[in-house]
Amino acid sequence: MQGFALSVLARVRVVLVSTSHPGNIGAAARAMKTMGLLRLTLVTPKSFPHAEAAALAAGAHDVLSAARVCGTLAQALEGTVASFGFTARPRELSHAAVDVREAAAEALVAAGVGDVALVFGGEMSGLSNEELIQCGRLVHIPTQPAFSSLNLAQAVQVAAYEMWQAAAGARLERPPAVPLATHEELEHLFRHLEQVLVSTGFLDPAHPKRLMERLRRLFVRARLEREEINILRGVLTAVEDFRRRNSA
Amino acid sequence: MQGFALSVLARVRVVLVSTSHPGNIGAAARAMKTMGLLRLTLVTPKSFPHAEAAALAAGAHDVLSAARVCGTLAQALEGTVASFGFTARPRELSHAAVDVREAAAEALVAAGVGDVALVFGGEMSGLSNEELIQCGRLVHIPTQPAFSSLNLAQAVQVAAYEMWQAAAGARLERPPAVPLATHEELEHLFRHLEQVLVSTGFLDPAHPKRLMERLRRLFVRARLEREEINILRGVLTAVEDFRRRNSA
Repeated sequence: MQGFALSVLARVRVVLVSTSHPGNIGAAARAMKTMGLLRLTLVTPKSFPHAEAAALAAGAHDVLSAARVCGTLAQALEGTVASFGFTARPRELSHAAVDVREAAAEALVAAGVGDVALVFGGEMSGLSNEELIQCGRLVHIPTQPAFSSLNLAQAVQVAAYEMWQAAAGARLERPPAVPLATHEELEHLFRHLEQVLVSTGFLDPAHPKRLMERLRRLFVRARLEREEINILRGVLTAVEDFRRRNSA
Repeated sequence: MQGFALSVLARVRVVLVSTSHPGNIGAAARAMKTMGLLRLTLVTPKSFPHAEAAALAAGAHDVLSAARVCGTLAQALEGTVASFGFTARPRELSHAAVDVREAAAEALVAAGVGDVALVFGGEMSGLSNEELIQCGRLVHIPTQPAFSSLNLAQAVQVAAYEMWQAAAGARLERPPAVPLATHEELEHLFRHLEQVLVSTGFLDPAHPKRLMERLRRLFVRARLEREEINILRGVLTAVEDFRRRNSA
């Protein structure tokens, strides 16, 4: 993750409206921080600060103690260039909600130019229609329709995770820490393997069937590391040495 | 979401190993159910059943009460064709971890043909190296590197969410026509391989180093088909027969 992406995430605020359980505020702070989101805004929380919020924040006390408390959602949205209201009942509303992954991509672009808010309602009934209308975009986290009851902090986790993934860009395929085997090394392995299979009588060169083809496919699929090739060739050499000693 | 996708998700079990806090078991059950995952397996949970688990499961009591409790991870993995071990410290391990999104896509394909396990360690230190070795794939949830401390239930939520997204993508590749090897069949192969390596003198039981561990990892990663296991065991038997004939 480059410094630029981190500075863009730093422009994203998570706004929790009318949260009932202080534990959820702490758990949300922790969820945010794991994904590089540091700005928490609370609109009329029922109890804050609170020991339970602190306990569940684990190592995210900095996020919690920097939280801003507002009296209205309008105040919480001041200065933002884009806001995303999360709702579990997108079908009841007149304008379509976007999927959280699409929303994260949009939010990241907007955060490139200004402040952005991700807005979550209270535990019991979520954001009211009046609150949703203040948000520029409605966002839906896809769930099993028959049981869409995501815990508040878990909804924040999924949203924060998608922000991080969007910022990390094309899914960072972690480069393998170890060198992979080259095509030639694989070919040497296959030749060596074939010799040993013939010499032990498992492979009849007159009737090879598709044995080598199948073994090839298996090892190619495994994407062998160089070190693994060396181990496998060591095994083959041990079998050969054994055969030589005992056939002599 | 088509019925086919739901039935595929039904083949995914979430395995929680050595969970300390029963509340996390309940919250994980809720997280699973929101995303269509219904099969929970607990390996040596500290306290289960427990009132706190029930409280945090909210509407997911069915998942909780159907949970299976096992004494070992090996038992929990019995009958699976693919298993994914989640870890927060992928860099410490010698083989590369895949990103959770990529893992979900792979898991979904595997669930098209058999049972699949998503495996999570305890709250304090996650899965041990010994436990990770039993999993076919290591999985990493991308986070802010300086604060990667995802709560257990939130890690389950992100993984379950990615499973749901993968299934909803309906880019379900048709399942491979061939049966994959089960966990037990692989274990038989590893025992057989170890015997042959010892008898041919390649593996010194007094100084095994990490040879079997490396070979295990290679073959687990390849996701062997049943037929391939049969071929490999045929090769091992041929080597053994050869040795017996010539040592007599």
